[in-house]
Amino acid sequence: MSFAELDHLCRRLEALDHAQSMLGVDEAVNMPEGGGEKRAEAVSVLASMAHEMASAPHVAEWIAKAESEDLDDAQKAAVAEFKRSYINRTCLSSDFVARQVNARMRCEQLWRQLRAKNDWNDFLPSFENIVSLAREEAARRAEVLKLSPYDAMVEQYDPGSRTAEIAAVFADLKSFLKGFIPEALEAQERRRATRPPKVLQGPFPIEKQKALGLELMKAVGFDFHHGRLDISHHPFCGGVPSDVRMTTRYRTDEFLSSLMGILHETGHGLYEQNLPHDLGHWPSARARGMAAHESQSLFQEMQLSRRPEFWQFALPKARAILGLDGVEVEDMLAQVHHMERGFIRVDADEATYPLHVILRFEIEQALVTGKLAPKDVPDAWDAKMREYLGLSTAGNYRDGPMQDVHWPSGAFGYFPSYTLGAMMAAQQWAAVERAIPEASAQIAQGNFHAINAWRREHIWSKASTLPTPEIMRQATGEPLNARYFEAHLKARYLQ
Amino acid sequence: MSFAELDHLCRRLEALDHAQSMLGVDEAVNMPEGGGEKRAEAVSVLASMAHEMASAPHVAEWIAKAESEDLDDAQKAAVAEFKRSYINRTCLSSDFVARQVNARMRCEQLWRQLRAKNDWNDFLPSFENIVSLAREEAARRAEVLKLSPYDAMVEQYDPGSRTAEIAAVFADLKSFLKGFIPEALEAQERRRATRPPKVLQGPFPIEKQKALGLELMKAVGFDFHHGRLDISHHPFCGGVPSDVRMTTRYRTDEFLSSLMGILHETGHGLYEQNLPHDLGHWPSARARGMAAHESQSLFQEMQLSRRPEFWQFALPKARAILGLDGVEVEDMLAQVHHMERGFIRVDADEATYPLHVILRFEIEQALVTGKLAPKDVPDAWDAKMREYLGLSTAGNYRDGPMQDVHWPSGAFGYFPSYTLGAMMAAQQWAAVERAIPEASAQIAQGNFHAINAWRREHIWSKASTLPTPEIMRQATGEPLNARYFEAHLKARYLQ
Repeated sequence: MSFAELDHLCRRLEALDHAQSMLGVDEAVNMPEGGGEKRAEAVSVLASMAHEMASAPHVAEWIAKAESEDLDDAQKAAVAEFKRSYINRTCLSSDFVARQVNARMRCEQLWRQLRAKNDWNDFLPSFENIVSLAREEAARRAEVLKLSPYDAMVEQYDPGSRTAEIAAVFADLKSFLKGFIPEALEAQERRRATRPPKVLQGPFPIEKQKALGLELMKAVGFDFHHGRLDISHHPFCGGVPSDVRMTTRYRTDEFLSSLMGILHETGHGLYEQNLPHDLGHWPSARARGMAAHESQSLFQEMQLSRRPEFWQFALPKARAILGLDGVEVEDMLAQVHHMERGFIRVDADEATYPLHVILRFEIEQALVTGKLAPKDVPDAWDAKMREYLGLSTAGNYRDGPMQDVHWPSGAFGYFPSYTLGAMMAAQQWAAVERAIPEASAQIAQGNFHAINAWRREHIWSKASTLPTPEIMRQATGEPLNARYFEAHLKARYLQ
Repeated sequence: MSFAELDHLCRRLEALDHAQSMLGVDEAVNMPEGGGEKRAEAVSVLASMAHEMASAPHVAEWIAKAESEDLDDAQKAAVAEFKRSYINRTCLSSDFVARQVNARMRCEQLWRQLRAKNDWNDFLPSFENIVSLAREEAARRAEVLKLSPYDAMVEQYDPGSRTAEIAAVFADLKSFLKGFIPEALEAQERRRATRPPKVLQGPFPIEKQKALGLELMKAVGFDFHHGRLDISHHPFCGGVPSDVRMTTRYRTDEFLSSLMGILHETGHGLYEQNLPHDLGHWPSARARGMAAHESQSLFQEMQLSRRPEFWQFALPKARAILGLDGVEVEDMLAQVHHMERGFIRVDADEATYPLHVILRFEIEQALVTGKLAPKDVPDAWDAKMREYLGLSTAGNYRDGPMQDVHWPSGAFGYFPSYTLGAMMAAQQWAAVERAIPEASAQIAQGNFHAINAWRREHIWSKASTLPTPEIMRQATGEPLNARYFEAHLKARYLQ
């Protein structure tokens, strides 16, 4: 039976994936520097073994035969998702992939050196090469997938999302934010004038921050029987669904950047831990792409953990562990709702963040489709920054188009996922409140059972059996709609 | 070129081995319990992938062709060792291996349950099955390797060592120890009566013990750029040569069990870290079997770190970190040279330990060759324990033949390695002293450069290019000879 052949292959790919994930975690958390060279070699050999096994021509025959075998619905969904990933994996020639891997490594290395020096000119030739390869990739994928070139790239990160729908919700959101941000900044000024927030006075010892982080992770539902929290330079959520490895980093002068980061990664972790176990070695049981994953981390961070009710529950715990004499919920909210226009996407708050993403979405679309030349990116960036956030990046490449690793590493079509995730999270929360009217009151009591049950039923258990937009439609009763996110921002920032 | 095919295969096997080693380290050091099931599945899939690749019939053709290709000496040695391991790997049918894996898992599980209950009778049927499979394995290996059955088993752990030579040095040692042990115990009594050793007064905080362990590891040459020290329930030295992962465990009422354990494992670690890098992915660049490995850990622990000169160097460091008011080198030596007859091999001192091993060597030889029935093991054990150590294990199976995991897990032929290693270490030290007359004085100054250079040249760099006995002969100028170990014991314990 061909399904059995595919099943056996999926077990092997799962084992190789398990090894690569865990080696990645170990590298970030434990590995001594001298282990890096051999580690990189081992991981690259494992990756090429997996690619070879998963892309072999006889696999296409197995898929074709399995499609006509007598399978139950879960098995059919598994074969369908395997086929989708097989097509996406095999549509580029290995010669092209090798050229692209080299170009990406080279451009990423250059980016690391030249960003620090604000040196756009020396970076440009390598970047032009990357863009030219991305256009070639997009054209090839478009041909095979019968999609537009940029859609074919988005499909790699957020299966099923299409530029037309993304552009529509982003246009709605952009026009909303143009008026909203000045208004919200004024409201923030007024609040601060009326009631200056109390300073959170450190130092905050790492052991205490960790204790608080672990307590809140546990409270919101993270399963420490199947996961743990460590320290790494760049926080991440890695590992495998049965053993989720989260990391954070601590500074002792303040605790909120680490704590909110932990809660964000916990959202990723809950998704992974609650994926279905049946056919767990098939790609259909994996998390559904970047936008869906980001919707879960942002649901946890933005929708749940920056909510006033969350701090009614969390502040007494933070006080018990960290002190925080005289600090009240209002003071915490002043911190976690702080809004500020800035140059850097990763430092942005939830209201200005989408404008950073929309800017990139517009520019990378133009790059991939050939409407914009790489050399013209700085001007386009500056124009949009001035228009959207009132800030100029003229001559400031480091804080402009050279700030992110995505493009140097060849990831075009990834950026929309962040804001799609934020909008999905707001729309999911609205659905949760309709289904569980007492959801906010439960949060205030530190009770996340009903909320997590909703998420498990409507999001987590779906894994990759449906495209992202269809999961959203079934979970919330309608396609992605910017108004939920807009309503969320208004309610939070214009009080 | 077939050598190139084998080279490519070795890189893949090295990557799979890297993954399995590191997943093993992670499991012991970091993994949450719930990750165990999927981890076991992943490791077992990786192991079977590696076995399949390394045992494929076309590999035999590559080996045969490579043997006639124009290769340099290192390449020839690499192919020869690959061929040796290929023959050893492929001589059992996969059907037999599957039966054996099942029987071993079952017997190990039973052993864990029944040892605690001292229940030999319920353990016996499973143990009989294991012995019967071991006899079948030995017969098959003997046929292919043209060795006696027990030699064929020893070959798995200590390539090149033969029962005839082992039996000769063990007979010499056994007869020596019979007279030596009572004499040494009397000497110990006299020393204690003359100068009662000072009690090492705890508690010893874990952080301080760790600091001392790290300092001594570094002093004796461990490279922390390519390795680290962690905590696990059962201390081990794992990882890969470029990234050696050592573990220990701490108790706060005393520090010597952890510290001497760290120094022992550091001996393993130095061997791994100093293996040759050229053709490092070939089996010829790996450590040479269990006896050679144990010779390095025991060289570090017994020959170097229990030497009086070592404590002249180490005690001031221990005092600076742990306190130890008024403790002198003599007090440390009373601890690290303590001798006592006991039931348990792993708790034994270096003088009584060989008798535990010789007992097992004699019994397992008789088991494998069919001269002893499994049911008669307890009587044979008791008789030998009474003869060698004056202790009876009648009815005490838990502290008798049920104390070790080796036989339940099917490892027959492994035990001699421990004492061969101890004897090799003593003989190596004698060679070091001939080559570097000031070696002891250097140890007293914490200077291990010349000693390590000797070990690198004569042991570590040889890796698996020669059989163990030949490495010893070239390093020390003669075959393994019990008199060095005997002289070492006399010098240390009869002063």
